[in-house]
Amino acid sequence: MGKGYLLGIDIGNTKLAFGLVGCNERRFHEKRVVPTERELGAEQAIEKVLDNTRELLATAPGEVAGIGIAFGGFVDATRRIGLSSPNFPGLDNVPMAALIEDLAPGIPVLMENDANAAGVGEVVYGKGRGHRQVLYLTISTGIGGAAIFDGVPLAGTQGLAAEFGHMIVAPNGPGCTCGSRGCLESLVSGTSIGRIARERAELHDTMMTGLAGGIDNITAKTVSIAARQGDGLAREILEEVALNLGIGLANIIAAFDPDIVILGGGVMNSADLLLPPAIEFVKGHLTPRGVKVPPIEASSVHDDIALWGAIALAGKAAVNHSSSCCLVDLVGVGR
Amino acid sequence: MGKGYLLGIDIGNTKLAFGLVGCNERRFHEKRVVPTERELGAEQAIEKVLDNTRELLATAPGEVAGIGIAFGGFVDATRRIGLSSPNFPGLDNVPMAALIEDLAPGIPVLMENDANAAGVGEVVYGKGRGHRQVLYLTISTGIGGAAIFDGVPLAGTQGLAAEFGHMIVAPNGPGCTCGSRGCLESLVSGTSIGRIARERAELHDTMMTGLAGGIDNITAKTVSIAARQGDGLAREILEEVALNLGIGLANIIAAFDPDIVILGGGVMNSADLLLPPAIEFVKGHLTPRGVKVPPIEASSVHDDIALWGAIALAGKAAVNHSSSCCLVDLVGVGR
Repeated sequence: MGKGYLLGIDIGNTKLAFGLVGCNERRFHEKRVVPTERELGAEQAIEKVLDNTRELLATAPGEVAGIGIAFGGFVDATRRIGLSSPNFPGLDNVPMAALIEDLAPGIPVLMENDANAAGVGEVVYGKGRGHRQVLYLTISTGIGGAAIFDGVPLAGTQGLAAEFGHMIVAPNGPGCTCGSRGCLESLVSGTSIGRIARERAELHDTMMTGLAGGIDNITAKTVSIAARQGDGLAREILEEVALNLGIGLANIIAAFDPDIVILGGGVMNSADLLLPPAIEFVKGHLTPRGVKVPPIEASSVHDDIALWGAIALAGKAAVNHSSSCCLVDLVGVGR
Repeated sequence: MGKGYLLGIDIGNTKLAFGLVGCNERRFHEKRVVPTERELGAEQAIEKVLDNTRELLATAPGEVAGIGIAFGGFVDATRRIGLSSPNFPGLDNVPMAALIEDLAPGIPVLMENDANAAGVGEVVYGKGRGHRQVLYLTISTGIGGAAIFDGVPLAGTQGLAAEFGHMIVAPNGPGCTCGSRGCLESLVSGTSIGRIARERAELHDTMMTGLAGGIDNITAKTVSIAARQGDGLAREILEEVALNLGIGLANIIAAFDPDIVILGGGVMNSADLLLPPAIEFVKGHLTPRGVKVPPIEASSVHDDIALWGAIALAGKAAVNHSSSCCLVDLVGVGR
């Protein structure tokens, strides 16, 4: 028998990604990305997931030892069901893992929400390697999080642990998508950075307006570009964002005392601008009482981290299933 | 052989408490409390701990199956050493568990900081029974916390997890004992409530001044008494305290998604005044995004909870040691 393979599936609202990786490899044997095309409905999207899975299973050059699914929504990891996907309601309560198992009888399947999967991906393939207690934040349109202990994401009672995006950093702050106010997400997400910049650009001169071709087109990316070119307003906004990120980081570190905090998501393309001042704030808060500040680092895996997380889950499924073919270096991935 | 006993030792800065409890009992067979008398120095205090332990071991009517220690300071639970006791420097790095083991060869000993011990006490003897994921906050002169998963306190990398008192609830808020600003402790601890009340009493009419016999004598207790008698300023202060407590609770619930949050410590003598508005705030923050608010309750054990926690640790030590005599109902106390 040839070497074993792991199959990862990342079910997002805009794209579906599939990756086939040799058990001991850290490079894709095959990777596919197709658009989710929500507008065509949930059934079509599910069909796409199943078709691509079927094809990858058929083309794998060896036995597939495990399958992992990262899902962009709330997940019951024990029952392996996506409970709800805020941006794609049709995918609610679809027993995705069971559907995949029907295609691949005997191959174990694990499923987590995409932030938890990404956190596991960091532990197995990214900057979390060798660390037992890892906090992961993904900062993109929204903010998700994961607390990974010995490779296992903390689920919480309702499957809602590590919702770092909805911790309050500014009481009486701006309204958040969640319906409350002052959440980390309402001040630090990509969407929020864009909103803050558009509000301020109405009142102040800034090169952002020109760069974006109008105030309404300013996004977080515009802010980042303008800040790099020395725009005062853009720099001021990112300083505030960094401070609020620092408050959020100080709070999760006080709560968990982790080995390392890893930050991913699109906003981390500006990690060089945001992390140094955020870390400075965290140091100022923690060191007076003798707490060592853990490493706070941008993810090295970037776009594919949820997919790598799904692959790591596949490895975990294989290990749980005592598949001897699978020797992937599951650092700390115990249970 | 008669029934087994558990010995708990609570080493605090002001008092040393000892409790002997039958393995399946929930009442003290014997309880002793003696003053720590810090002014006499660490050696004297250690001698007192050892003397009382020796006496209780000698008078136990049956085999002592385990000993637990709650320590008022930072603890390395793995090495079972109190690393530092902020208010009693002489007790730093004393190998307390080893000293106790010398007195009682063969009896297993476990040690935790007092907040973690109290949290374990809640899980075994208090409101945390039957719950797998319990957050515990103690609000007295300072604020301590514990996150207990399956009966095991989350330690964190530096033994500093669950430091809920130093999560920020008011950026740019008042200075905290830790050297930073705006921590939960700086706004909600008993010490802080007293400080806030004294500051405000300088500026406003309040019955607190008379009740305490002068502004300088106002404490958190004065605020509570005055609020119950309808004093406007006292009520206003407690409303603010409750709001800040609510922010802290909302944040730890977002981080952990626990089964239950239990609050102990002297300030919880005003639980009837503080918890309803705090819970109201938490509901307002969490329910818009569909999160169920977990039970948030005042401890039922009050003053003795750290000692009961030490006794629960003794039970855990006995179970780990596979003592068959010990059948204490260690709900969820797994590992």
